[in-house]
Amino acid sequence: MSSAAGAVSWVEGASGSGHDVDHLPMAVVVGAGGTPYVGVRVGDLVLDLGRLTGDPVHAAPSLGPFLARGPALWASTRASVVEALTDPGRRARVEPLLAPVADVAALLPFEVADYVDFYCSRQHATNVGRLFRPDAADPLPEAWRRLPIGYHGRAGTVVVSGTDVRRPRGQRPSYGPTEELDLEAELGFVVGAPSVHGTPVPTTAFRDHVFGVTLLNDWSARDVQAFEYRPLGPFLGKSFATSISGWVTPLAALEAARVPLPGQDPPPPAHLAVAEPAGYDVAVEVVVDGEVVSRPPYAATYWSPAQMLAHLTANGASLRTGDLYASGTISGDAPDQVGSLLELHRGERFLPDGAEVVLRASAPGALGGRITLGEVTGRVLPALTD
Amino acid sequence: MSSAAGAVSWVEGASGSGHDVDHLPMAVVVGAGGTPYVGVRVGDLVLDLGRLTGDPVHAAPSLGPFLARGPALWASTRASVVEALTDPGRRARVEPLLAPVADVAALLPFEVADYVDFYCSRQHATNVGRLFRPDAADPLPEAWRRLPIGYHGRAGTVVVSGTDVRRPRGQRPSYGPTEELDLEAELGFVVGAPSVHGTPVPTTAFRDHVFGVTLLNDWSARDVQAFEYRPLGPFLGKSFATSISGWVTPLAALEAARVPLPGQDPPPPAHLAVAEPAGYDVAVEVVVDGEVVSRPPYAATYWSPAQMLAHLTANGASLRTGDLYASGTISGDAPDQVGSLLELHRGERFLPDGAEVVLRASAPGALGGRITLGEVTGRVLPALTD
Repeated sequence: MSSAAGAVSWVEGASGSGHDVDHLPMAVVVGAGGTPYVGVRVGDLVLDLGRLTGDPVHAAPSLGPFLARGPALWASTRASVVEALTDPGRRARVEPLLAPVADVAALLPFEVADYVDFYCSRQHATNVGRLFRPDAADPLPEAWRRLPIGYHGRAGTVVVSGTDVRRPRGQRPSYGPTEELDLEAELGFVVGAPSVHGTPVPTTAFRDHVFGVTLLNDWSARDVQAFEYRPLGPFLGKSFATSISGWVTPLAALEAARVPLPGQDPPPPAHLAVAEPAGYDVAVEVVVDGEVVSRPPYAATYWSPAQMLAHLTANGASLRTGDLYASGTISGDAPDQVGSLLELHRGERFLPDGAEVVLRASAPGALGGRITLGEVTGRVLPALTD
Repeated sequence: MSSAAGAVSWVEGASGSGHDVDHLPMAVVVGAGGTPYVGVRVGDLVLDLGRLTGDPVHAAPSLGPFLARGPALWASTRASVVEALTDPGRRARVEPLLAPVADVAALLPFEVADYVDFYCSRQHATNVGRLFRPDAADPLPEAWRRLPIGYHGRAGTVVVSGTDVRRPRGQRPSYGPTEELDLEAELGFVVGAPSVHGTPVPTTAFRDHVFGVTLLNDWSARDVQAFEYRPLGPFLGKSFATSISGWVTPLAALEAARVPLPGQDPPPPAHLAVAEPAGYDVAVEVVVDGEVVSRPPYAATYWSPAQMLAHLTANGASLRTGDLYASGTISGDAPDQVGSLLELHRGERFLPDGAEVVLRASAPGALGGRITLGEVTGRVLPALTD
């Protein structure tokens, strides 16, 4: 696989932008009145991938067909794009395939197949355990250190960044608009290559199946969730909307961000063991109405994405192209590193109507600077009235 | 809408077969070496719907496009089929479109979008509460009588009747083959017409969105489930496989089976109120290795399918074509009416390798006899070894 390390792009402004050729996130974009196409971002521009390669798999109005093809095509595509954007001799032919990113909108990049949300931050699970189950001796659930706890969410209500989110109604226990609308800052992992039903996917096969990462806001109605969640878990408290960035950062762009996990005690069972470094140093920012309210560090997360994947298939459950699984709320040790308002304000303050939530993130890139993940934004609309 | 009441089919053997023109279940079928097509069962024959109507929406190798079109097309299609199968003058032209049902296999009838599993039987929830939480004062969870408790399951591992099911491995808490593999006898409700994100679907719109019903076996690994389910609900204990019948019985065929609910105390909140009769008198049989081990009566179920649908959209969550939601295990009052082995054998005996599970069901039909729902079968394969 070609590496972006040391490559210099002829695209002006790419260097130091967070979108140099060590990043190259992908999206499905559409210009004014145009046809959606797969775009690769470089600097403040978007490259039309289908027109660059002429390959029909890059010309679909969804990342799906490309994701389905697996890691060999992902790598060769990335190498082709790096070459096109760094070889000065290609510039004249490639430049016409670039459009300003400001002129396009990113759509939902793929059809979400199954959506799974995990609970991988020890700090978050501890904070929530203390708030929801104050009488428990250990705030962590019994199984928490033995496996990455997760559950299925609603795939059909995953929306792309920029989509307004209507305040849900629900039973709290009376039926009405939630009074505890929260955000959850997470990373989402995008499955490309499917797996065979009945056969677990080992941690070592993580990069064979997972193409990339997207920021994810797991909107939550805490009052609804608290009333409904025993014994089958969250349902309507979560299922009204989950927002993801339209831009997917390839795992290949996060190689320089790999860091060891903070440490697992007890050691995981054999089928969940991972070679280090298995974590990712992704720095997240939670912005509410323009103010950075928290800086959750993904590197502090206990369970790694390879372990989540191995766990969710450990019973033979199969993967499909478009499966999305999320880390769970990312919270670090410090009070200003938590990934939800529940934790930030101890359950005393949530999102009002009109609030605008933005999640941003960055990570070390292969060229020595930082890459900037696609942001995920959403504004809270007032609840419907009868 | 044309009614099958009083209609006499020219198809020999249809009368009294459970598949007279008051039933007309639909499937995607394929013959030896042939192309999959949408079939409608009558007697022991399958009618090629696409060839009958010439409408492309009936000619897809999936029920999806037909389901998406909604209740007006569902009704007109049903009326066309009834007319074709009852008008003796049509016989010569329609007969060539029929094939023996024994010569075709039913495939997964549609791509499952989101799968939700409810917990609507009071008797089942009470039985399970006593077994899983013996110290609780009330075996029913706090919210149980206020809303139909449910959770999202894995859509990608829904398989069609006849698919073998491999015994899953999981953490019980050590990782290995489940020792408590169970069945759960349920009804699944198939959503056809989608809804708008942000707008709840009222109970009165149930028939505008739900096309039909399929028998469903929610295979469960009880030891895995017991270790993992706190606080986010069932995950790997369920996600390895869910089996449905390939034949979908239209709601229109169950009009004669409508019965009042057994009674809701306290009355449901206004947004979950339903006009009676809101229940369905579907008699289920659980067969293990050829022996009927239980006869769960769906009529005993506390929450109705219209209430499940209103609840799952009460927060504005949208419906997509192919959404599937299940009743939860159906259990009646008597010991031989429970829908799981957990209840039948008090947690002391489960499914061995090689066991064959068959769910069967029937209901009153419009012609005075009974209709026979498509069965769901599955055989337990031994766990993979490393």
